[in-house]
Amino acid sequence: MPLGERAGDKSESRYCGVETDFNDDMPHVLAFNLASGGFDFVVATLMDPAYRPSLVKKDSLSSGVLPFASSDLVLSPSQWSSHVVGKISSWIDLDSEDETQRMDSETTLKQEIAWASHLSLQACLLPAPKGTSCANYGRCVNQILQNLNNMQLWLRIPLVKSDDDSMGANSDTLVDSWETWNSFRLLCEHHSQLSVALDILSTLPSANSLVRWFGEPVRAAIINTDSFLTNARGYPCLSKRHQKLIASFFNHSIQIILSGRSVHPKASMDPVASHNHSAVDLERHPLRPYLDYVAYLYQRMDPIPEQERFELGYRDFLQSPLQPLMDNLEAQTYETFEKDTVKYIQYQRAVSKALLDRVPDEQASVITTVLMVVGAGRGPLVRASLQAAEETGRKLKVYAVEKNPNAVVTLNSLIRLEGWENTVTIVSSDMRHWNAPEMADILVSELLGSFGDNELSPECLDGAQRFLKPDGISIPSSYTSFLQPVTASKLHNDVKAHKDVVHFETAYVVKLHNVARLAPSQPVFTFAHPKPSDKESNQRYVKLQFVIPNDTGSAMVHGFAGYFDATLYEDVHLGIEPSTATPNMFSWFAIFFPLRTPICVDPGSTLEVHFWRCCGSTKVWYEWCVTSPSSSPIHNSNGRSYWVGL
Amino acid sequence: MPLGERAGDKSESRYCGVETDFNDDMPHVLAFNLASGGFDFVVATLMDPAYRPSLVKKDSLSSGVLPFASSDLVLSPSQWSSHVVGKISSWIDLDSEDETQRMDSETTLKQEIAWASHLSLQACLLPAPKGTSCANYGRCVNQILQNLNNMQLWLRIPLVKSDDDSMGANSDTLVDSWETWNSFRLLCEHHSQLSVALDILSTLPSANSLVRWFGEPVRAAIINTDSFLTNARGYPCLSKRHQKLIASFFNHSIQIILSGRSVHPKASMDPVASHNHSAVDLERHPLRPYLDYVAYLYQRMDPIPEQERFELGYRDFLQSPLQPLMDNLEAQTYETFEKDTVKYIQYQRAVSKALLDRVPDEQASVITTVLMVVGAGRGPLVRASLQAAEETGRKLKVYAVEKNPNAVVTLNSLIRLEGWENTVTIVSSDMRHWNAPEMADILVSELLGSFGDNELSPECLDGAQRFLKPDGISIPSSYTSFLQPVTASKLHNDVKAHKDVVHFETAYVVKLHNVARLAPSQPVFTFAHPKPSDKESNQRYVKLQFVIPNDTGSAMVHGFAGYFDATLYEDVHLGIEPSTATPNMFSWFAIFFPLRTPICVDPGSTLEVHFWRCCGSTKVWYEWCVTSPSSSPIHNSNGRSYWVGL
Repeated sequence: MPLGERAGDKSESRYCGVETDFNDDMPHVLAFNLASGGFDFVVATLMDPAYRPSLVKKDSLSSGVLPFASSDLVLSPSQWSSHVVGKISSWIDLDSEDETQRMDSETTLKQEIAWASHLSLQACLLPAPKGTSCANYGRCVNQILQNLNNMQLWLRIPLVKSDDDSMGANSDTLVDSWETWNSFRLLCEHHSQLSVALDILSTLPSANSLVRWFGEPVRAAIINTDSFLTNARGYPCLSKRHQKLIASFFNHSIQIILSGRSVHPKASMDPVASHNHSAVDLERHPLRPYLDYVAYLYQRMDPIPEQERFELGYRDFLQSPLQPLMDNLEAQTYETFEKDTVKYIQYQRAVSKALLDRVPDEQASVITTVLMVVGAGRGPLVRASLQAAEETGRKLKVYAVEKNPNAVVTLNSLIRLEGWENTVTIVSSDMRHWNAPEMADILVSELLGSFGDNELSPECLDGAQRFLKPDGISIPSSYTSFLQPVTASKLHNDVKAHKDVVHFETAYVVKLHNVARLAPSQPVFTFAHPKPSDKESNQRYVKLQFVIPNDTGSAMVHGFAGYFDATLYEDVHLGIEPSTATPNMFSWFAIFFPLRTPICVDPGSTLEVHFWRCCGSTKVWYEWCVTSPSSSPIHNSNGRSYWVGL
Repeated sequence: MPLGERAGDKSESRYCGVETDFNDDMPHVLAFNLASGGFDFVVATLMDPAYRPSLVKKDSLSSGVLPFASSDLVLSPSQWSSHVVGKISSWIDLDSEDETQRMDSETTLKQEIAWASHLSLQACLLPAPKGTSCANYGRCVNQILQNLNNMQLWLRIPLVKSDDDSMGANSDTLVDSWETWNSFRLLCEHHSQLSVALDILSTLPSANSLVRWFGEPVRAAIINTDSFLTNARGYPCLSKRHQKLIASFFNHSIQIILSGRSVHPKASMDPVASHNHSAVDLERHPLRPYLDYVAYLYQRMDPIPEQERFELGYRDFLQSPLQPLMDNLEAQTYETFEKDTVKYIQYQRAVSKALLDRVPDEQASVITTVLMVVGAGRGPLVRASLQAAEETGRKLKVYAVEKNPNAVVTLNSLIRLEGWENTVTIVSSDMRHWNAPEMADILVSELLGSFGDNELSPECLDGAQRFLKPDGISIPSSYTSFLQPVTASKLHNDVKAHKDVVHFETAYVVKLHNVARLAPSQPVFTFAHPKPSDKESNQRYVKLQFVIPNDTGSAMVHGFAGYFDATLYEDVHLGIEPSTATPNMFSWFAIFFPLRTPICVDPGSTLEVHFWRCCGSTKVWYEWCVTSPSSSPIHNSNGRSYWVGL
């Protein structure tokens, strides 16, 4: 049964599994661990651990029947697929120096995977590579992956990383199991059916190194009973750091699997607990106290906030950025964005401050401020501006400029409905071509994309600046884009699935979740309005250097997460850059710039990245590349793959 | 005029160019340097070096006419394209810290390339990157390359590499100009129109580091007059190392370009030389003595040997390996291979030795040795075997087994023609399925591919071994494949041109020429015949570690060159492994295994490579990968792209 009910949580991590020994009686294994033990699934050894193909061959009397646990008929197909994860024989070692051992391992691995496929299991757990070298193991698994049904292969990886940096690079012994995983998945080309099951040990590596795994396809975390501590009552519990890690697993749809023998005999035999159980429970499961503890950790988590619940379906899902200049937005899009009250409160605050600065109290009743909302849409910024005028007691004349004739219809009815006819003038025109009848004191716009300038706010406001007074105010007064390198294997695989270069040279809007942020974000391009000089180009070029923390270990960079922060007016800002993000605002997800070939970075090394904003006569586009630790191709040359139309 | 006539040489390197200053009078530039100076082409500055776009803009009175040298009409189209290489303004610096300088550079570069395209020049010389960073330069050139006509862009790179290894990796200053080139071409994705013009300085880096360049697309070598020494007569000459390098350039179709001012005034003014010249020559070209010296170096080279001349057309040309087991060879193919007398002499020597070992002199007239040629083709090995019998005075009975019915026709007429009917029995059958009427003393075969076992000699001889006496002899008795990492940008680009993964997972037969061998070759797979045990598998797995010499510098590995060496009998061998290759044998070119993504290796680092020979029921294939310095994908998983049919 699930670990508990957590409002909003429909993820896999509600289900907890248990690793079992080889047992020929699968129905009993299921009854004992599921019905009686309370687990949701078992990780069961499929084949007699004594089996070795090379020994069978010598005995020519053998029937040729492979020593699997039970026949397929002992469980129903749905029991096999819902409740059993196949555990591949842990003795196999495809990179052994001993050729017989190597051959036996390859044969057995292939036989067991074939059996698991026959049973339609959802996943198999592959034993951890035995040494630092895993090329032959990788080659064999890669062969299997080429012809596999929907089954997932979970490669078991112990969660270890030595903190001893001094011996790191030159040492022959493995200090960071992430390296093994990385080598293995590179050999298998990031195959989407290859994922990780982390073995959680009693000591955990540094927090920075743990972060990496949340950008990797981790499906399960195996906790051995040895890793549990004992509380005052003699019951198992986990260290604070372990607890925090488990909570992160829950939040990343990573399933917990318990493993090992009970090392808390008192808890396992608890007479009080067993007293209350029915007959079928008499054979109390020795790992029940551990499961109860994991369930306790699950149940005490906060419920998922409403906004996040709404966004669950968007997590790590690639969306094409809007092209609001070239295309006209749809009603549904306006509807969604207009609900973001936080954003409009910030705009109202900014307009209020600007009005107070521009018109002294004593002239409030004399001076009428001309405010133009450029890109008025269906009117939310008009409303925010009027509310600011009311709040500050300033007189306002508003022009609402909007190029989308469909939005203008709504805007028009809003104005009649609210009785704003005397204050607000609708202008159905592209701000870049409108001939304004007078000059504006304040220009209000919201033309920002996830990466700030990526919806061409600079180009639009260049056009609007013609009718802003020389001392006029633009809200926003400036905005800056930000970037940071991320591990994002899910996004990488989704981009790769398109099998072309175009998708690797496109930026995507994404609710980032299964992502590891490898270094703090850095500012990229800044645009200020009004522009100091008319002639200033909107082209930009920046070189960024990200330093990978020493204790992170090596990591894979699949691309860059992008954000923006906008200064609306003076200290009123709006943005999604993680360290300064405006709380509870949902209009923007992050943007993701992929790398065609992921780049592995060493601890303490510098990742050097170049970004360009290029402007042509009909379009604006970005180009990007990496030049250190090694040079990537220039992405999106001439905007061949991705551009924003003017 | 060409540097000279060298028998067999039709390459570009016969033509020598000269770098000239900006001159508005192009007809004069051509007349002076070509007609009078004896050069074949000029590398001419296209635009007034004083031009800066940012300065022009300020002067609004300007006509907007760009200050190019002459109009397109002053030369004929064929003069422009045959005799002028465009030299891009050397002041441009796209990675300058100064934005105006950067913008001016980009504008000028694009204007000059556009002008050169308009003139249909064959090539433009791009100035060397100014610093260690060249990302913006690379981005701009990459943009240009996306829309370029057939013009080549030669990136000027000074041939420098510091020998100071201690400061190499950590130093901020550039110690190896190859790194700049490598970064630049990675940014431009190995674009086939981007190549190198090397600036040859007075001191040369280590021999190992020079070798790298012969795997790169070097089109020209620019020698400044400063790099010349002075001989006893006061004339310019070059150091021995320079001479050797120039000879290599000639052999790799790299054109020489002379540059600079005369620093040998005596030679340039030589009254004796000028005395013999006609009126048009009165204005003697100051670089004429340098050109004469280069021509002397060219003329004194040995003519190209006949065999090499025949192979010129095959240089660096990718061929699919034969599938002689699945397909039947054509007459033309037999014709070519049968001409390789060296090969058959080696076979005759091997058979002779085997006959002498097997039949003592005193029994020579008594014992008849049964020799079977398996894969007899049109009969050359039958002939070699009979000649060995004659030479040694041994009695021979020959079975000639051949699966190709078309070859059997020729074989049959050969036997009648030669009167071998009593000695030779033709067997028209696949050796794997033939039921031999008696057992053989000696099994002679030549089923080897460029990589030894790649035409399935092991599988064929497994089948033939059934009718070899237990103490019988197989000729060859064993064969081993070899591999070494190579830089081979030409091959990489040719494979890449197919735009699919399949071609990157295929081995090719190639006459390797424009290739840098980065480490000595190492043995890969060995097969011995007769097999010690029937059950021994023909699957193989090997892990190789190549150490890149410290003084090579960093280098790019585009793939692996493969060879074989076969022991025919005792000390008689046959092979193409470079260090032990049988001289004057032409039946086999090397084999080339590409890497999907070229891997950059650091000096002194270890390149770890894995090769597998995999056997299925209908095919045999190789898989390969790199695991150090970083892991590549497994190539050719399950033989999905390249395999040899059984």
